[in-house]
Amino acid sequence: MAPSVTGTRLDVLAIGDALVDVKASAEDSFLAEEGLVKGSMQVLDTEGATRLYARMGQARETSGGSAANTMAGVAALGCRAGFVGQIADDQLGEIFSHDIRALGVEFNTPPKADGLPTGRCLILITPDAQRTMSTYRGASHELSADVLDPEQIRGAAILYLEAYLWRSAGPRAAMERAMAIAHEAGRKVAFTLSDIVCIHAHREEMIAMLDSGAIDMLFANENEIKALADAGDRETAIEAIQSKVPLVVVTCGEEGALAVEHGRRVTVPIARIGSGVVDTTGAGDLFAAGFLVGQTTGRSLEDSLRLGAIAAAEVISHFGSRPESDLKELVATL
Amino acid sequence: MAPSVTGTRLDVLAIGDALVDVKASAEDSFLAEEGLVKGSMQVLDTEGATRLYARMGQARETSGGSAANTMAGVAALGCRAGFVGQIADDQLGEIFSHDIRALGVEFNTPPKADGLPTGRCLILITPDAQRTMSTYRGASHELSADVLDPEQIRGAAILYLEAYLWRSAGPRAAMERAMAIAHEAGRKVAFTLSDIVCIHAHREEMIAMLDSGAIDMLFANENEIKALADAGDRETAIEAIQSKVPLVVVTCGEEGALAVEHGRRVTVPIARIGSGVVDTTGAGDLFAAGFLVGQTTGRSLEDSLRLGAIAAAEVISHFGSRPESDLKELVATL
Repeated sequence: MAPSVTGTRLDVLAIGDALVDVKASAEDSFLAEEGLVKGSMQVLDTEGATRLYARMGQARETSGGSAANTMAGVAALGCRAGFVGQIADDQLGEIFSHDIRALGVEFNTPPKADGLPTGRCLILITPDAQRTMSTYRGASHELSADVLDPEQIRGAAILYLEAYLWRSAGPRAAMERAMAIAHEAGRKVAFTLSDIVCIHAHREEMIAMLDSGAIDMLFANENEIKALADAGDRETAIEAIQSKVPLVVVTCGEEGALAVEHGRRVTVPIARIGSGVVDTTGAGDLFAAGFLVGQTTGRSLEDSLRLGAIAAAEVISHFGSRPESDLKELVATL
Repeated sequence: MAPSVTGTRLDVLAIGDALVDVKASAEDSFLAEEGLVKGSMQVLDTEGATRLYARMGQARETSGGSAANTMAGVAALGCRAGFVGQIADDQLGEIFSHDIRALGVEFNTPPKADGLPTGRCLILITPDAQRTMSTYRGASHELSADVLDPEQIRGAAILYLEAYLWRSAGPRAAMERAMAIAHEAGRKVAFTLSDIVCIHAHREEMIAMLDSGAIDMLFANENEIKALADAGDRETAIEAIQSKVPLVVVTCGEEGALAVEHGRRVTVPIARIGSGVVDTTGAGDLFAAGFLVGQTTGRSLEDSLRLGAIAAAEVISHFGSRPESDLKELVATL
């Protein structure tokens, strides 16, 4: 996937939640009983997580976390990815670090002793392939600026940050430090809005961050960009945000995706792979992976979007939020 | 699935390994590099397990253990199942107990503090759907007779024991105690040979156990019964063993399965479900589940074998060692 940005050790370095996904099938009636809104993400405390876990069906565990999934995709596409996230010194932390390294992602953040256990994300998959998430953040939101390695940040072409983690004060301070280091080294900073619940309470701070020029590339879905712009429709929202960020990427579900760079707009339809939609978990994460790879390897805006669409299509064609097919082969024609 | 045996609380109670399966795809060349024999099961110490885990690819974790899988199948078939197995007070132990209970299996064995961590089974799936297993037993083989609940044993129509766990001295003492309690209460005792590696070192003790009348129902595959009888062919092996046990059940891979009860022999072909063979992990375990359910619900020998064949076919049609379809519906015609 050459050429990569000269003078870099990594194509993309992400800072995000280090979570283990705990996935189980569930009927719509179960969501109703638990008061869960389909497709949403809620944050649980220890007690709430224990209670929901006890009521969930048989589960399977895999490593997850939105930005971590994106880095798994970047590595699967043949680019050099790194990840910074806080795990505890426990079995779920061991599983997380094993899996992300097994995928070829550089992961050096030391496990934190004497704190909260490694975070988990309880994911309920309904028969319509939608996922409803309840996150126990645990050690993940105990990330601090102390664990950052400035050399690693300076050596990555793009620094990628997720709003899920940015919401907490400690991790946000770490991200702000990382952004400053990246920009000083002439690198790009990308930010994903993650979920509408991340936006509502922090809209003004997010807008201020965009206005300050801290973000070079913004990822959102339709609902997220509307929430950020406080606008009723997508077009008004894009119009409002595109003046604040050099590059805005918006995924629009079945309608495909679009990007606006310095006023120039490109759209692509969704891609289809295999038997179609099995589990939408990770679709947005993998879309971002494809797009980031396109950008770091010097592709056009349109080809970057196409890479995103293919990577997203692969991950929704099977149960699980990380790629299972040979992504390099899937995108070889681009 | 009535009628069940009168005066019982459970149809089947199993004593077995409490393990979390850690599954990853692997090429044949990886098995060769690691010196692993395809289709075999080896036991690893902590160091060996850590080393192999580090070299394995991205994994997914699910609850496992051979007899525990069988109990998951018994419950999925609508019968009352219980399980006794030793976990530690850690995250993998929590995952194991959550999953087995979520499947409707009674599980009351208290977690053991201050011992080894919960056991895990590293499973490599090659492209031909064969599984090669490396087990770190951990807490599982610290099971002792102290944790047995005599009332639970007396209340189960069939006590089901696995050779994997029987190999260790402490667990074997617990199993011997449980067998005595079951027989005193007029219950049946079933035993599965598990794997040829369980037989080679313990053949004479196993034969002595059979000769003592401790076992009413023996489960084996073709290689296991040949190893137990120290015979070169299946027929000679069955001839030698059938005089020692009232009921012998032998699975023969693609050839189907057979049972010999007091000299009467019945055979059935394999069943096919869905797109065929995806992952053979758990096939023998689920075969035993179907057969046990047939026996405890008063079916004929032939129908019990058919139940076993259908349950086995379901579990090999997907990735994972526990049933995912509605087994009750699949066997409704029997």
